[in-house]
Amino acid sequence: MTNILNLKKLSKYIGVALCLGMMFFADAAVAQKATWIWYPGDYEIWLSNKMQNRRTERGAFLPPLWKEDSHYVLVEFHKDIDLPKAEKVEIGVEGQYNLKIDGKAFAGYPKSIDIPAGKHRISLKVYNQASPPAIYVKGDKLVSDASWLVTFEDREWIDASGKSSDLSATTYVNAGAWNFNEVNTSPSAFRLPVTEQQAVKKDKSANSILVDFGKETFGFVKLLGVKGKGKATLYFGESKEEALSPDHGELMDELQIDQSQKADVTFEGSRAFRYVNIKFDGGVTVDDASMLYEYSPVEQRGSFKCNDEQINKIWDVAAYTLHLNTREFFIDGIKRDRWVWSGDAYQSYAMNYYLYFDSPTVTRTLYALRGKDPVTSHINTIMDYTFYWFLGIHDYYQYTGDKAFIKQMYPRMQSLMNWCLARRDKDGLMVGLPGDWTFIDWADGLSKKGEVSFEQLLLCRSMETMGLCADLMGEKAEAAKYRQMSAALKAKIFQYYWNAQKGALVHSRVNGKQTDNVTRYSNMFSIFFNYFTEAQKQQVKKTVLMNDKIQKITTPYMHFYELEALCTMGEQNAVLKEMKSYWGGMLNLGATTFWEEYNPAKSGADHYSMYGREFGKSLCHAWGASPIYLLGKYYLGVKPTAPGYSKYIIAPKLGGLQWMEGSVPTPNGDISVRCDTKQIKVSADTGTGTLQFTSSTLPTCKEGAVVAKGKNVYEVSIAKGKKYTVEYTAM
Amino acid sequence: MTNILNLKKLSKYIGVALCLGMMFFADAAVAQKATWIWYPGDYEIWLSNKMQNRRTERGAFLPPLWKEDSHYVLVEFHKDIDLPKAEKVEIGVEGQYNLKIDGKAFAGYPKSIDIPAGKHRISLKVYNQASPPAIYVKGDKLVSDASWLVTFEDREWIDASGKSSDLSATTYVNAGAWNFNEVNTSPSAFRLPVTEQQAVKKDKSANSILVDFGKETFGFVKLLGVKGKGKATLYFGESKEEALSPDHGELMDELQIDQSQKADVTFEGSRAFRYVNIKFDGGVTVDDASMLYEYSPVEQRGSFKCNDEQINKIWDVAAYTLHLNTREFFIDGIKRDRWVWSGDAYQSYAMNYYLYFDSPTVTRTLYALRGKDPVTSHINTIMDYTFYWFLGIHDYYQYTGDKAFIKQMYPRMQSLMNWCLARRDKDGLMVGLPGDWTFIDWADGLSKKGEVSFEQLLLCRSMETMGLCADLMGEKAEAAKYRQMSAALKAKIFQYYWNAQKGALVHSRVNGKQTDNVTRYSNMFSIFFNYFTEAQKQQVKKTVLMNDKIQKITTPYMHFYELEALCTMGEQNAVLKEMKSYWGGMLNLGATTFWEEYNPAKSGADHYSMYGREFGKSLCHAWGASPIYLLGKYYLGVKPTAPGYSKYIIAPKLGGLQWMEGSVPTPNGDISVRCDTKQIKVSADTGTGTLQFTSSTLPTCKEGAVVAKGKNVYEVSIAKGKKYTVEYTAM
Repeated sequence: MTNILNLKKLSKYIGVALCLGMMFFADAAVAQKATWIWYPGDYEIWLSNKMQNRRTERGAFLPPLWKEDSHYVLVEFHKDIDLPKAEKVEIGVEGQYNLKIDGKAFAGYPKSIDIPAGKHRISLKVYNQASPPAIYVKGDKLVSDASWLVTFEDREWIDASGKSSDLSATTYVNAGAWNFNEVNTSPSAFRLPVTEQQAVKKDKSANSILVDFGKETFGFVKLLGVKGKGKATLYFGESKEEALSPDHGELMDELQIDQSQKADVTFEGSRAFRYVNIKFDGGVTVDDASMLYEYSPVEQRGSFKCNDEQINKIWDVAAYTLHLNTREFFIDGIKRDRWVWSGDAYQSYAMNYYLYFDSPTVTRTLYALRGKDPVTSHINTIMDYTFYWFLGIHDYYQYTGDKAFIKQMYPRMQSLMNWCLARRDKDGLMVGLPGDWTFIDWADGLSKKGEVSFEQLLLCRSMETMGLCADLMGEKAEAAKYRQMSAALKAKIFQYYWNAQKGALVHSRVNGKQTDNVTRYSNMFSIFFNYFTEAQKQQVKKTVLMNDKIQKITTPYMHFYELEALCTMGEQNAVLKEMKSYWGGMLNLGATTFWEEYNPAKSGADHYSMYGREFGKSLCHAWGASPIYLLGKYYLGVKPTAPGYSKYIIAPKLGGLQWMEGSVPTPNGDISVRCDTKQIKVSADTGTGTLQFTSSTLPTCKEGAVVAKGKNVYEVSIAKGKKYTVEYTAM
Repeated sequence: MTNILNLKKLSKYIGVALCLGMMFFADAAVAQKATWIWYPGDYEIWLSNKMQNRRTERGAFLPPLWKEDSHYVLVEFHKDIDLPKAEKVEIGVEGQYNLKIDGKAFAGYPKSIDIPAGKHRISLKVYNQASPPAIYVKGDKLVSDASWLVTFEDREWIDASGKSSDLSATTYVNAGAWNFNEVNTSPSAFRLPVTEQQAVKKDKSANSILVDFGKETFGFVKLLGVKGKGKATLYFGESKEEALSPDHGELMDELQIDQSQKADVTFEGSRAFRYVNIKFDGGVTVDDASMLYEYSPVEQRGSFKCNDEQINKIWDVAAYTLHLNTREFFIDGIKRDRWVWSGDAYQSYAMNYYLYFDSPTVTRTLYALRGKDPVTSHINTIMDYTFYWFLGIHDYYQYTGDKAFIKQMYPRMQSLMNWCLARRDKDGLMVGLPGDWTFIDWADGLSKKGEVSFEQLLLCRSMETMGLCADLMGEKAEAAKYRQMSAALKAKIFQYYWNAQKGALVHSRVNGKQTDNVTRYSNMFSIFFNYFTEAQKQQVKKTVLMNDKIQKITTPYMHFYELEALCTMGEQNAVLKEMKSYWGGMLNLGATTFWEEYNPAKSGADHYSMYGREFGKSLCHAWGASPIYLLGKYYLGVKPTAPGYSKYIIAPKLGGLQWMEGSVPTPNGDISVRCDTKQIKVSADTGTGTLQFTSSTLPTCKEGAVVAKGKNVYEVSIAKGKKYTVEYTAM
């Protein structure tokens, strides 16, 4: 009896547990699926407007200098579904809307509806001027997600008899989404999270407090125990000098205080700073200050450690620098612009693949940069930045294998490319037309005249990207066209710019003639674009890269590519030294994040000036964080060789280090590498890899076959989920 | 002493008076000039979105089926000025902004600034997502008006040294404005005015009231003395039948009542109705109902009176019909769509020139219809409606002479025309591509297949408009191109569609072959476009216009053009009869406004059905109001012959009336005409006119010379400001 009773009880519990389990499973499935959706790109454009319009300069609003687009204010969403049984569906909408089943509208604005079993088309049409039309639908089966179709123009007219229109030309695309998975998390209310942080040092005087947060940070200053009536002014500083320069600091905020009782007051504007010099009128008292640190909740998946503590510090500071500049979008720097600049963002994408592998931040940034048709200017008004946008898509596909994104973006790629092609001169080359900004780099006296070789190189790579994506879209003719065009342009680049005597590509043509000027830009890009022959590469390394007579690079921005070019040629030892000298140089000056520009020849507070302003320079600039990318890709040596890491290579290079270890994130798990001079250990959660290395002795590996690939070069095939240890002798 | 004292006192008073006078003068001058400004077209687009998204159908939101564009969310405004002395300037802004003098920004958001004497550039840059960035600036000399320049893309970058960019390619246009002349009348807060109106009849039952406002009206229903808790539902009716058909009426609104004390409740949605059937739950009591009539405050300047009281009634009802449909924009009808339809609006422009001459409503409507680039569909998705847009600009310039508007709109004309031209088939003709709506008219069985002659005709006229506007822009080459293209197309139209045997243009070509079908549309348009020879005109009049075998027109829409064609051929007598029969026919059925469609063959409540719905037809449709236009242009006979009435013609035609009198508005005052069978009286406030008339006796005129222009035809030159009386004998 007792046993039976227990068994009954047990079965009852099992029943409940099963039931709960199923419910949990069902809920989990739905929770994964139901999400707020919108017209693809629209939320991204809207959010980027909002973010980019937070810039101030000395208390004045300073918005971007380019066109800001808007979302479609009227959007139709629909989904065809076959329901096995009737279900109740919860509805969330941002905007004024109608809701139809099979073309029949409900009166008013229903918050939930009952859908009968069977085949149905559920549609919503939403108008919203202030923020993007967005919907959330959650039933058992029917949930809003990227499988819904959307259009900004449904053309659903009827004729006089009530017969409906020919909709054959209506363009539907898949809805855009992110991670707003609850009905209450409406997209327009999105804010990055904040957490309170304390200062590490405070200097209080009668009417001021100077607070030091110990390192560069970003967020909202909070004054504690504020009382009285009068003005409180914040003078921010990335450096102490800046905070103490009320007349020349870049950022300041003012607030009128009127508190009869002591209260905490948080400033509205988010700002970048390490120091804040808080000044207040005589009638005001302030007890203390803290700040609400605002951050993007991306997960740091990549890692790097080695025997050189300075390199470890560089990696950590680079990671922190990138994190501060990873916000709603990848921005340039947190103090000044806080804008989405395509060339800057392109580097952040690359670093992201070795730190977070957060695809949404990449695609959001690509959408925001592209904006909408008509194209009226280069992206950010900069010619090179238009091309980096195409390159960003190229890399995004290679790292993620995300075809769905390419499909959504392809029409915008086409219209931007067509706009560019129409701007070529009679020789088929890009030249800066009035209003175009040819940027390349911050470098004294850099010529932008005529047909700059660097721009043609980027155009060529952009055309290759068009060819690749046309292929993915099944547009064979267009793919062939772009392959032909890029091949022709590549040939032209060498015909026009290669100077055999100088052993280099020259900087430009002016009036149809090669100039004498050799700069690093097109030469270093041609190396990792693999446009040079092996002989040209070696020559250029000597005549340009390792040649001190060629104007040196002073921005981390172009240092990124210069070091990448050297790495692809196996110069990891030299690059490690340069990293220690350049990024180490900033650390030696007390940098807590990496800078927009660093010229070792400068000294003291001179380092902080730029743009003709005493504190014009940004001391936390995304493009300063390239060691993350270089160490992951060219030391740990991990990179995809087929889209989305379905195939990849691991080619560790110590570059003078004794040992190093780390992991590289991929769309499906991580790739881990540990390497010293005797042993290489690798494991991967994804795809099929190839471990490549050199050894002066015959290497061994218990878990896989070592294949010799030439003198001292060996390979081991890496399967998903297995651990490999190779014994070898580093060369 | 006394005198001197008095004189002193007097001089003091004179001083004060002078001072006040000057202040008044200065104020008046400024008040005329300072006005809210925005990027041209942006406010119009924004406001049209708002208006067009007020449509409901049986309580469900029913937005337009075409793309709705958005304003530029970030706009720079500036003005260069040379101030004789320093002045204080008041600032109003809709949006987040900065304000600069000579490139130097003020911190924060100043509401007034001091500008020193001398030459300065004042600029504001404004971000606003929810409504168009708009500014108001009012100083003594510096005021915001259409002379300010604006751009959505200033490209004001700086290089690393702080040097600013080449702005040579930045496109500035003149600001848009309307009549928001006070800092507090912010454009986004604009609402049409309302005035309370009472019902003429009420039928009260226990839980309902049926109210009759005596005629078609528009606005917000107000329930008086509402108490209790429960639902109140309004069933609207343009006809009594509709109001009494809760299941089939087009419009209904519901409101949850919760009033412990008696109160008046006004419904939020504006609706069209004559009758309202108010039903309320048992727990609710309602004393009475009235309505807030919402209207456009345009001034009725045109007038018409004659001996025929039915014609007078037709004119009055037409004027009321047009007034109801003249709202923020010219809309189609007040009950159903309340949208801006280009073909409908084109007729409203024409009527407007004979009723209000309100140019802002015309230009607002043209901006709203055009929207922004990229063009993705025909205007309203309808091919003919795209062309009517061009024709609307043609007529607008002819009536107003407003070159500034053409200059602002020309780029949008170019991009829309280029979009059209790219859609022509291999024979250079427009054919309905997938997604294009070929409308022409509501007519049973009307073929839209192949290349419809009517569409080519409208394209040809649109090309002529492009030529005209290119000339105004000083674009000589483009003007020549369009003249050549339109001439070639006109020749092609006659080659492809003229059927000598039928003595008419045929309806269409299908598979490159003329069809047998003859319809009225292209034939009647060719008459008043003056595309026919005189012989063709006379032939077509017989074979088509006066031929009952050719499918009859049942919409006032195409009746407009049919009667216009007859009028241009001197058939005023026949047209008057048709007006009395057709519009009189609606009046005989109790119409208080004119309808979307009228088929005398129908009877009873059958008249109210359309689109397969019992009450689908609109009983107050703008295109029903054409008698205003016909009576002004072809009976009073007034029309401009040079832009803006700098020259005009007055050619009165009694058309069977005994006498008529009226006035026609122009940009500068009115033209008045009185005409009976013995005497014509005219006077004009503008330009140089020609009075043309026929007389069987030799006419006399004391005020001007009578010049004979052929058998029985005479002319008198009309100068501005003079009154002319001609004694003659009507033929």
